[in-house]
Amino acid sequence: MSASPVTIVGATGDLGFGLALRLATAGVPIVIGSRDAARAAEAASRVREAVPAADVRGLANPEAAAAADVVVLSVPFASQAATLRSIRESLKPGTVLLDVTVPLATAVGGRPTRTLGVPQGSAAQQAQELVPAGVAVVSGLHTVAAKHLADLDHAFDEDALVCGDDRDAKERITELLHRIPGLRPVDAGRLESARILEQLTALTIGINVRHKTTAGIRIVGLP
Amino acid sequence: MSASPVTIVGATGDLGFGLALRLATAGVPIVIGSRDAARAAEAASRVREAVPAADVRGLANPEAAAAADVVVLSVPFASQAATLRSIRESLKPGTVLLDVTVPLATAVGGRPTRTLGVPQGSAAQQAQELVPAGVAVVSGLHTVAAKHLADLDHAFDEDALVCGDDRDAKERITELLHRIPGLRPVDAGRLESARILEQLTALTIGINVRHKTTAGIRIVGLP
Repeated sequence: MSASPVTIVGATGDLGFGLALRLATAGVPIVIGSRDAARAAEAASRVREAVPAADVRGLANPEAAAAADVVVLSVPFASQAATLRSIRESLKPGTVLLDVTVPLATAVGGRPTRTLGVPQGSAAQQAQELVPAGVAVVSGLHTVAAKHLADLDHAFDEDALVCGDDRDAKERITELLHRIPGLRPVDAGRLESARILEQLTALTIGINVRHKTTAGIRIVGLP
Repeated sequence: MSASPVTIVGATGDLGFGLALRLATAGVPIVIGSRDAARAAEAASRVREAVPAADVRGLANPEAAAAADVVVLSVPFASQAATLRSIRESLKPGTVLLDVTVPLATAVGGRPTRTLGVPQGSAAQQAQELVPAGVAVVSGLHTVAAKHLADLDHAFDEDALVCGDDRDAKERITELLHRIPGLRPVDAGRLESARILEQLTALTIGINVRHKTTAGIRIVGLP
């Protein structure tokens, strides 16, 4: 099945890299973005090593952001605004931005089990404020462990909660995440729900530490 | 198996009443508290109707709060502080208060899919500020539907996240919730995590509306 390319800005980080591996495995052409084009190219070869059939290349962030209609933003919260400013000219109207940023307190030297208050309500809402008109932000993947994404032998059996104000954009992300076996995308409402979803990362990190595991979340009672 | 009594302040509400039914079914003696002793007695007879073997009585809140070492506070957020002030003299040191309050925006005419900011961080932390020294607050049950608690034919297969600063208190609540078949208590950390757990109510309410269901949550990956 052919698929439109997906750009992952921040695929040199754990979550972005794991997502690149999973989507490449599913036959999605991947463009990896990094501030440094050489690091992006290096990450692309690492994807190719793990997934020989992968259609993947690495570009500097602005070029990467221009290369696909779906752009995943997977950078630390401290870099989110600066990264978005660096790519905003490249985001065409109609682009869907999947923001997976979590405002963990680690951004200011705090604990990963705590989140910072974000003036806009959430990192995703901050992203929506920073992208050009016509770019829809969807927020998601906050409870899906980077470690499990990167381990292609791991069989998922959990949910990926997504939220966003634009139904079509949310649907595109839902279809994309459906390509990862065992991951069930669940619509968690409008973008303002990101303030809840982002905190679930802090919750699961705490559970991981306390229960010595790598936790995910499943909504019980869905049809 | 004999059990210590549990007081439920606010058992005339849906969640409190459902919890009273479930614990009474499990053989736990129940004391129902209400501002009005007559309403408490009336709720107690409704419990007895549904669970003929129930050991249950109804008392005005202050007397109810004095009658057990475990007190569940299940009132709307708008009434939480006033209710706690009305019972604080009755809470003996060593009492465990299970606070299930959620600061839904409905308290000020807003939506049940949104929560209010609470100065102390969460309703549970507000509760901790209002109880006498020596009373430990545990927060929990935010994702367990009142409807499912009240329906004794409903078979649970979900988690009940609990948090609190006092390990022994959290352990007592964990043991109590274990008496409800199919409900798995999961330690979600210190009391400050209540600010995350309380928002899960808003999240599940949104999911219920959107997916026309009655959702719960399960943590995936626990041993």
